[in-house]
Amino acid sequence: MASAPFIPVIPAGGAGTRLWPLSRRRRPKFLLDPTGVGRSLLQQTVDRLGPLADGRPIVVTGAGHTAEVGEQLGGAACVLSEPEPRNSMPAIAWAAAVVEREDPDAVIGSFAADHLIGDEEAFAETVTAARRAAEAGHLVTLGISPTHPATGFGYVECASGYEPAVGRPGTPSADGALPVTRFVEKPDPERARQFLASGRFFWNAGMFLARARVLLDALAEQLPPLAAGVREIAAAHGSPEYEQLIARVWPRLTAIAIDHALAEPLAADGRVVVVPAGFAWDDVGDFAALARQLREEHPEAGGARSVGTDDSDARALGTATVQAISSRATVYGSTHRHIALVGLEGISVVDTEDVLLVLADDRAQDLTALVRDLERTGPEHLL
Amino acid sequence: MASAPFIPVIPAGGAGTRLWPLSRRRRPKFLLDPTGVGRSLLQQTVDRLGPLADGRPIVVTGAGHTAEVGEQLGGAACVLSEPEPRNSMPAIAWAAAVVEREDPDAVIGSFAADHLIGDEEAFAETVTAARRAAEAGHLVTLGISPTHPATGFGYVECASGYEPAVGRPGTPSADGALPVTRFVEKPDPERARQFLASGRFFWNAGMFLARARVLLDALAEQLPPLAAGVREIAAAHGSPEYEQLIARVWPRLTAIAIDHALAEPLAADGRVVVVPAGFAWDDVGDFAALARQLREEHPEAGGARSVGTDDSDARALGTATVQAISSRATVYGSTHRHIALVGLEGISVVDTEDVLLVLADDRAQDLTALVRDLERTGPEHLL
Repeated sequence: MASAPFIPVIPAGGAGTRLWPLSRRRRPKFLLDPTGVGRSLLQQTVDRLGPLADGRPIVVTGAGHTAEVGEQLGGAACVLSEPEPRNSMPAIAWAAAVVEREDPDAVIGSFAADHLIGDEEAFAETVTAARRAAEAGHLVTLGISPTHPATGFGYVECASGYEPAVGRPGTPSADGALPVTRFVEKPDPERARQFLASGRFFWNAGMFLARARVLLDALAEQLPPLAAGVREIAAAHGSPEYEQLIARVWPRLTAIAIDHALAEPLAADGRVVVVPAGFAWDDVGDFAALARQLREEHPEAGGARSVGTDDSDARALGTATVQAISSRATVYGSTHRHIALVGLEGISVVDTEDVLLVLADDRAQDLTALVRDLERTGPEHLL
Repeated sequence: MASAPFIPVIPAGGAGTRLWPLSRRRRPKFLLDPTGVGRSLLQQTVDRLGPLADGRPIVVTGAGHTAEVGEQLGGAACVLSEPEPRNSMPAIAWAAAVVEREDPDAVIGSFAADHLIGDEEAFAETVTAARRAAEAGHLVTLGISPTHPATGFGYVECASGYEPAVGRPGTPSADGALPVTRFVEKPDPERARQFLASGRFFWNAGMFLARARVLLDALAEQLPPLAAGVREIAAAHGSPEYEQLIARVWPRLTAIAIDHALAEPLAADGRVVVVPAGFAWDDVGDFAALARQLREEHPEAGGARSVGTDDSDARALGTATVQAISSRATVYGSTHRHIALVGLEGISVVDTEDVLLVLADDRAQDLTALVRDLERTGPEHLL
């Protein structure tokens, strides 16, 4: 039996303020190549999904980024341009409606544009298993085996236990999927530890698969005007009034994340399954995560000149020259300056033409407060 | 009785590599204004000594710095230009020989060009007391009351004790001077503590006063060719063969510090006295010292925008804008970039057009190794 066609959907939104000043309003995180592999996170995402797809992936992005997204991807994806950001559900639903018009039974899979995936082969295997579960009519999420009690991620609880030691489900169904009982938002440290100990929780990486019609019909139950709106826009595609229609309908769509709009209510109804992911994953959400990635997952990335025979471990990405003594640090240089580091421990340095950031990795989360302050008081052009 | 004329001598040499990249080969420490008061360290030194002097202060500096020294000082000092650096004794002796030609009984006082003095009035009083001791025929040094067991300074031991609690000598002679028993080079921490506890040690700030002829006659005993050489150069001043003579004689002069050439041997003979200094002093030898100065002695210097109500204490000198969160840091900015700091503790940031330095203040001494590495491997233009 031929399986249903698979079309990846990539909502490319979000500023990534915790990677400022690498990321800016005009150059958000998904357009960056923060680990220095030569491809942006968006390009890596399309590269990864393209070979698994039965049609061009659909990228949904803000009007302000459409041009650069098109430049980065060439013809490798179909780009839908949002007049304004309405969070992830309208973006994914719009793409689902576009796919539904072609083939209502096709499976769409939504993947973030700015995450890192460790093992491409395992990723392909997991997506294949998730497609089978989606063809069976489920809303499917990919569950990342947690490696530590993270408080920065949401969690997915499954009904059956799995073996934390193996990092794999204990009693998967035939297609490798486990029933989901609930989605939980970022927990405090104590709850995160309990989650890990229970062996029933995965990290929620925001990856969802479903048949296009299944997804939109479920959305029509939860938020009828949102489902109707994106179906109206998709139906008008190619007509003379298309642009006018988008401009009128889009701003009225409920701004909501797919987690709240679909995943949580459907999980409560027993209609969501999770397929355990066999690959490493990171949302590179801040400079601490990025430093960890560069140290552990991309040891080949970047170099720096260490002085003497000390235990310096300085990483350098970009154009700057780095000279370090007694330092564990990461440098992102977009200038051609000489950067000297002495006695630093767990520090990130971002050297751009107009902004210099020096940040202690263990305070990486606090960068948000600094960017908020800049939004309030300016200067605007640095954002 | 009219006192002898007093002529200050200011040897302006030394690169100050531990303040790199603020200080460079072409712009050594004494030409900088590291605390942002609007005058270079050299200008501050001349400003301080000028009013106490009976003639223009004599600045002795390298040929490569003569132009900029002249620019900074205008006509406020007489500048002697060394063909090449020979350490402090030849420079001071040359100036002494120039003064001796005018008035052998005049008192010269040698002061570093790149130190900070805390209290100008107390400085003037101390110099006046030291002049009286010098007129009595002694080699006089100014002794700084130590505030902590520093290992980065040399020490002066005096015969009589003084009260550490008061920071003043216990049994000064009529002119406030105490006999010196020896000069000690930078001690290890244990010895430094013993020095402090004994109540008989001062920091050696390298400030010496003596009648010109007394100093040169003493030098003639210790190093006859050196004394003869500078007297020969001074005698030729104004003659047609002056330049040729300097070029021939100067390179043969013994390169030696005044401490080794005069202070130590004369102390052993009981011919040196110390006048306790009533002023705060700092050689601002590295970024840790500079950060301490800016925090404790120059609280008015520089500003930075702190985010939120946290306990940030970030100082900013120069042209950069600094925005800080949860940081105790010092920023020296010569660019116009926006500098953001997150979670730093005791960090100095030096932001120049071609070099960026980020340094942990408690490893400030290690900067020397980094600069040495740069001298070895280049690029040369950064030095």
